[in-house]
Order: sequence, then structure tokens, then C-alpha cells
Amino acid sequence: MQASNSSSEDQKFLVRRLLISDKSKGFIELLRQLTVCDSVSDNDFEDRFHEISSLGDYHVICVIEDESSGKIIATGSVFIENKFLRNCGKVGHIEDVVVDTNARGMQLGKKVIAFLTDHARSMGCYKVILDCSLENGAFYEKCGFKQKEIQMVKYFV
Amino acid sequence: MQASNSSSEDQKFLVRRLLISDKSKGFIELLRQLTVCDSVSDNDFEDRFHEISSLGDYHVICVIEDESSGKIIATGSVFIENKFLRNCGKVGHIEDVVVDTNARGMQLGKKVIAFLTDHARSMGCYKVILDCSLENGAFYEKCGFKQKEIQMVKYFV
Repeated sequence: MQASNSSSEDQKFLVRRLLISDKSKGFIELLRQLTVCDSVSDNDFEDRFHEISSLGDYHVICVIEDESSGKIIATGSVFIENKFLRNCGKVGHIEDVVVDTNARGMQLGKKVIAFLTDHARSMGCYKVILDCSLENGAFYEKCGFKQKEIQMVKYFV
Repeated sequence: MQASNSSSEDQKFLVRRLLISDKSKGFIELLRQLTVCDSVSDNDFEDRFHEISSLGDYHVICVIEDESSGKIIATGSVFIENKFLRNCGKVGHIEDVVVDTNARGMQLGKKVIAFLTDHARSMGCYKVILDCSLENGAFYEKCGFKQKEIQMVKYFV
């Protein structure tokens, strides 16, 4: 029964790529739990969606939709950077991972990270990196990451 | 005289975008001072160069050439990430900054960072970020950056 339940949960919370229709399912409201994000017009959303989609597998945003409510409850993104070093290597950059505060404790964050990490590996990256707060470091350690460097930032606005 | 000397130095150490011909000027050898980087064939170099160039202003690698020796003595890169958050904002990611060990003390690192930061600003980014070792944090503070988060990494190879 445990396996069956687990499988049913997995079925319920599938990780898939972002669709334009996810805007009406609370995708922007979910991002707002992460940082500043005013309302975005449908046109602006579609323009940005197509800009990102034009990079194909080089910039992927994934989401988890709660089938019962029709709401997007988790998301994350990864883009692939082409380098010259490491013998013309590639690095995956994970960004903007957030799980709805009402959907915590269901391992959705781990699912998102696994999806994005698997994608980076499949693209031939030699590593995948992300920046996070000190408090969130423990979560990423459970996902197989290790702390390495520090992040520096310069704001323009 | 001071101003004249300084201007002459500036002229001597111009920051410009990477050219294919920079491979024969020690660009790969310079990257090797940063991390693992085996020899790269001319074909592989050109393929990667064109992949990166296809992103236009969204992925820029800059270099400083020592005109007297014809060698590349500093480099750095920045790519621009399109986001949905921050009202469909953009973030600049600075990567792979290195100055030749024999060319330290001439503010070349600051020049590279200024070039990459200015580019990110001109592209409409709301911030520019980079990851570095704890030891290098002080250098980036002099460039106007502040420490914010921690970097987590997962290696595949």
C-alpha cells in the first residue's frame, strides 16, 4: 500500500515544463513568495515566455501543478552556460526555486531540484550550481549539494 | 604628467570582446590559471565561440590584450538571464574572471569587472551577481559588490 500511495502522490505532483497557460494558474503569485514581483500583463508574460523558450533546452523553467486545485505550487529554473574552460565545458545554473508555503513538507522542492539537476546532467554539464541563503543551505545539502563559494551582488535599482 | 601616463596606460590595456584570433594569444592558457582546462582544438574553440556569439549581447566574453607582448592577460564573461520575477527582470551573471599572475597590480581586474558590470546595466539588468572564494570577496567589495548568499555546487564528473 505504501508503494501504491507513493506512486499516486508522484502521479499527482508531476514536474513539467512551464506553459503559457500557467500564468492563470498562479505562477506569478508563486514567484511573489520569493521576491518582488508586480502583476505582469499577458503580453509581457508571453513575450518573456517566448524569449526564454527560444533558448530551448538551454533555459528550462519547470513547475508542479496541484491537479486538485489547478494551482502552480512549485517552480524552479535552470539555464546552461557554455564555457571555454574545463575543455569547453558546460555549467547548469539553478535559479528561482520556490514551493508554495501551503504545500511544504511534501518533498516538492526536492522534486524540482532533481528535475533541474537531471536536466543539467543530460545537457552534458560538469556541474550544477545555485545561490541560496545560509538557512537554506541544509536543504540543498540533502539534495546532494555542497557549499563552495560566496555570492557577491551589485544592485542597479 | 600623471594624467598623461594614466591615459597612456588606459590606451595600452583596453577591454574588448573576445575574438577567435585570441586563441593563439594565450586565452586558453590564461583560463588554465583559473581551473582545469586542457588544450582545446581550433575546431572545438571555433564551435564554442560561435555557440556563445549566437547569443549576441546576452553572453559576452571580454579580454585585455597586452599590446607589447600580444598576449591576453585578463578576461571575464557575463551572461544575461531573462526572468519572470522582478517584473520580467534581467540578471547579469559574471563568470570566469582571471588576470595573468604576471600582470597583477595594474587594476586590470577592476577594468574587466567595470566592463562586464556596465554591460549588464546597459542590458537593463536590475542586478549583477557572481560567485567567488571568501578570499576574493574583498576585491569585489572594492568593485562595489556586497556579499549576499552562499553558493552550493553539485559535480557530475
